Amino acid sequence: MEYHQINDTDRENLRKFISEPERFVTEPTKHWDHDQFRTVTAMPELVIQPVTNQEVENVVKYASDHHIPLVPRGNSTGLMGANLSVDGGISLDMVKMNRILEYDPDGLTMTVQAGIRLKDIEEYLADKPFTYMPAPAMHWATIGGNVDTNAGGLKAIKYGVTREHIRELKVVLTNGKLYKFGSKAVKSSSGYSLKDLIIGSEGTLGVVTEVTLRLYPKPRKSINAIIPFPTLNDAIRSVPAILASGVVPTTVEFMGRKVINLWEKYADDEFPIKNGDGFIIMGLDSFTEEEWQAELKQALEAVKEFKAEDAVILSADSEEAKKIWKCREELLLAIQKSTPKMDEIDVCVPINHIPEVLDRIEELENELNIRIPNFGHAGDGNLHIYLCSDGMSDEEYAKTSDKVISELYKTAKSLDGNMSGEHGIGYARAGYYEDFYGHDYTELLRQVKKLFDPNEVVNPGKIFKM
Amino acid sequence: MEYHQINDTDRENLRKFISEPERFVTEPTKHWDHDQFRTVTAMPELVIQPVTNQEVENVVKYASDHHIPLVPRGNSTGLMGANLSVDGGISLDMVKMNRILEYDPDGLTMTVQAGIRLKDIEEYLADKPFTYMPAPAMHWATIGGNVDTNAGGLKAIKYGVTREHIRELKVVLTNGKLYKFGSKAVKSSSGYSLKDLIIGSEGTLGVVTEVTLRLYPKPRKSINAIIPFPTLNDAIRSVPAILASGVVPTTVEFMGRKVINLWEKYADDEFPIKNGDGFIIMGLDSFTEEEWQAELKQALEAVKEFKAEDAVILSADSEEAKKIWKCREELLLAIQKSTPKMDEIDVCVPINHIPEVLDRIEELENELNIRIPNFGHAGDGNLHIYLCSDGMSDEEYAKTSDKVISELYKTAKSLDGNMSGEHGIGYARAGYYEDFYGHDYTELLRQVKKLFDPNEVVNPGKIFKM
Repeated sequence: MEYHQINDTDRENLRKFISEPERFVTEPTKHWDHDQFRTVTAMPELVIQPVTNQEVENVVKYASDHHIPLVPRGNSTGLMGANLSVDGGISLDMVKMNRILEYDPDGLTMTVQAGIRLKDIEEYLADKPFTYMPAPAMHWATIGGNVDTNAGGLKAIKYGVTREHIRELKVVLTNGKLYKFGSKAVKSSSGYSLKDLIIGSEGTLGVVTEVTLRLYPKPRKSINAIIPFPTLNDAIRSVPAILASGVVPTTVEFMGRKVINLWEKYADDEFPIKNGDGFIIMGLDSFTEEEWQAELKQALEAVKEFKAEDAVILSADSEEAKKIWKCREELLLAIQKSTPKMDEIDVCVPINHIPEVLDRIEELENELNIRIPNFGHAGDGNLHIYLCSDGMSDEEYAKTSDKVISELYKTAKSLDGNMSGEHGIGYARAGYYEDFYGHDYTELLRQVKKLFDPNEVVNPGKIFKM
Repeated sequence: MEYHQINDTDRENLRKFISEPERFVTEPTKHWDHDQFRTVTAMPELVIQPVTNQEVENVVKYASDHHIPLVPRGNSTGLMGANLSVDGGISLDMVKMNRILEYDPDGLTMTVQAGIRLKDIEEYLADKPFTYMPAPAMHWATIGGNVDTNAGGLKAIKYGVTREHIRELKVVLTNGKLYKFGSKAVKSSSGYSLKDLIIGSEGTLGVVTEVTLRLYPKPRKSINAIIPFPTLNDAIRSVPAILASGVVPTTVEFMGRKVINLWEKYADDEFPIKNGDGFIIMGLDSFTEEEWQAELKQALEAVKEFKAEDAVILSADSEEAKKIWKCREELLLAIQKSTPKMDEIDVCVPINHIPEVLDRIEELENELNIRIPNFGHAGDGNLHIYLCSDGMSDEEYAKTSDKVISELYKTAKSLDGNMSGEHGIGYARAGYYEDFYGHDYTELLRQVKKLFDPNEVVNPGKIFKM
C-alpha cells in the first residue's frame, strides 16, 4: 500500500499535540530501527513518545486521517519485527507512558499505563500480598507489548497466560476515540469480548494505552525440581502422566543434553547433573510445605515408568541449584553465541505431540544440514526452536531457514497446533500466515482489521498480508 | 427488520438437508416457545434438529440466503430469552447433536458436539482422572449454550469461567462454511482470537457445532465451610481479606437471613444455623488434607475482624451439612415460590463493591415498594437479584421492574461492573444495552455483527438493538 510521507506541515501539526519537544523526535536514531532479534530493521520517519491518552488520541487520528502508518512500540523485546515501522511513518514509542494509575487490592486489580515494564510492576508488588501472575521471561518488556502478543511465560499450565490476567483495557482506535474494553469485574456475559480481540492483535487494531491487571494472592511456597531422564523423549512423554496423577505444576520446562553442552561451552562451566540426556524442571506452588511435598512425591511416582532418575530440588540456595537455573536462563544466549545468525520458531502444539515436533526437527537437521537446537515449555507444548546459520552463506541460510520454517509450520498445523505460542507473527512471519490458517480464516481477520482500521494505518503489514 | 416468511418451497428445500423427518418439525409445539424464565415467549415457524456439521452448514446458508431468521437453541435453560425465535423463522434445536467425539487425556482435551449437556460430560468424566472445571449450576444446560453465554458458575475465583476452559470451537458462519477457531494447543499468539469473540456472543455471530474442552486434573480434596456473621455486610466485606491472606478459595457464595427465611417457609424446614444474619460458603480444593486445613485456618483468622462466628465444615455427610446445601440450592425456587412473577438481574461488580449494590437494592425496595431478594457469588462479584411482583398489577410490575433494572444497571456501571456476569443480555435486556455501554461501544459491536452476519439472520434482536 502507498502511504503519505510525513512532510513539514505534518510535523508542524503533530508537534502541537505533544507538550514537550524532547518527546517528538524528527530524526530517529538507530535505537528505533530494530527489535531484540534484528532479523527485520526499518527506520521510522518520526518518533513520538506520548504520556497521556489525549496525546495518543490526537496522533492516531491524525495518522489515520492523513494516511500515515503508525506503529505502537514498547520496550522492543519482540523477536518478529512487530514493532518496526516497515512502511515508514510514525513510531509511537510508549515507554514514557509508564505510570501506575491505581493499586486496588480490595478489588483485586491494578491499573497501569501501557508503557510500564513488567519489572516495574514486579518491584511495585514486591512487598504486597498480591502478584501479577503471568511470568514471561523478558522482565523489561512493557505490559502493552505483553497484551499485544498475549505473552505466555512459564506458568501457563496452572495460571494461564496474559489473556487470563487482564481485566480491562483502554484502547485508542483509528477514529481517535478512547474505548474501554472489559471491566474491573471478574465475570462478563455482556456482548462480544472486544478486550479479547485486542489481546494478541500485535497493535494492528488500535493502540492500548491503559491496562487493568488482575491481582492474584501470592503463593506462600514455591519450589522447583529438576528430573533427569535417559532421553529427552522420555522426559517429555512423562508430563501427561504427571497431570493425570492429579498434580498441577505451575511450570514444566524441558531441555536436552545437546543445548546443555552448548551452555557449558558458552559459560565455560560444568552442568552439575552428569546422568541423563533429557531433563524437566518442574515448579510447584502451594500454601503449605506438606502440599508441595506430597505433590512432588506423586509426580516422581508418576514419572518412574519413563525411567526418571533422582530429582534435585532447586528451591534451596545450593551452588548446584544456582548453576542449573543459570544454565536454563542462559540457554538462548548460549545458542546465540554458537552461531553468526539465528532465527526462531515458537510453535505450540498439544503437549502429547511435542515428541513429533522434535522428531521432525531431527529429520530436518539431517536432510538440510542445519543445526536446530531447542528447548521449551513441556507443560504447555510451546517450543523455542533456533535455526543456526553456522557456516552458511546469507543466501543459503535464508533459503534453508525458509524451508525449515515452512516444514515445521506444516508439522504444527497437522497436530492442531499454533504458529506461535507467545512470540507472535509480526512482520517476519506474516508471509506464512495464510498457508497455516487457510484463506477463509485469514479473510475473516482481514475484515476485522478493516473494521477497526479502514485506512490500514495502525501497524500495517503485520500478522498477515492484506 | 422485515424477514422472509417460511413457505412451502422453503420447507421443501430445507427438508432435503435433513436425513430423518422426525428432526424437521413443521408444526412446533409449546416446547419451543419459551426458556427457563418464560419472561419472553415466541413460537418459531419451523424447528430443525441437526445431527451433523453439514446439516447445520446447509440450513444456515439457506436461512442467510433467503433472509430467514435462525435461532440456535440448546436445552433452554436461559433466563433472558436469547434462544427464542422472536422474529419467527427457524429454531435450530441442537440437542440431538450431542455426541462425545474425542477424549484425549494426553493432550488434555475432550471434544464434544455443542448439544451435549454438562450433565453428560460430568457423567462421562466421573471415573476419569480429569474434569471439566467450570461449574454452572444448570447441569442440564448444553455446552453450546454455555459457550454462547460464557457461563460462569461457582469456581470463577480460582479456575475462571467457561472462556478459560475452551480450547477450540467449530462454528458455522452465515456463508455456510465451517470454521475452526482456536486450537488444541494451550498457548497462542497467532492473530485475532475469534474463538474469544464467539464465546459470550449468544449465538448472534454463527452457530457453534463442536467444542474442544480443556481437561483439568481432578482435585484430590474438596471441602466447603459455612461461616456466619452478624450482618450480610460483614460477611461480604470479609472476602477481600481472605484473598489478601494468601488463600485462594474455589468459590465464595453469600446469602442473608432474609432469603433463608424464604427457604424455611418454602421447604417447611429449619436452617440449622441460628446465629448470624449473613453467611459465606467457602470452598477449598487441594491435593492434601493439610493444605485445605491450613488454608481454612488462615481464612478463619482473616475473617475474625469482621466478627465471624464459628464456621461449620460442610464436607462431612452430616444432616446439618446436607440441609445447608439443600437450602443454598433451593434458594431460587424458594424465591420463585414466594411471588406470582419474577425477573432477575445478574450484574457483576468488583468484589469490594458488592455492598454498594446491596445498599442500592435496599433503597429501591423502600422507594418503590418492591421486594428484591438476592444472593450470589461474593468471590467474583456476581449477584443474582430477584424482582418479585407480589401483589402488583402486571402494568405496575412492568413499570417498577423497569425502574429497578435501570437503576441497578446505573449502579453497576458506576462501579465499573458488567450488566451480566453469566446469564447474558438476550432479548429481555437488549433494550438497556446501549445505555449501559454507550453509543460508540455498541456501534462497534453492531459492526462486528454485520461483518459476521450481513443479512442479520442469526439470532437477530439479541444483546443490543441494531
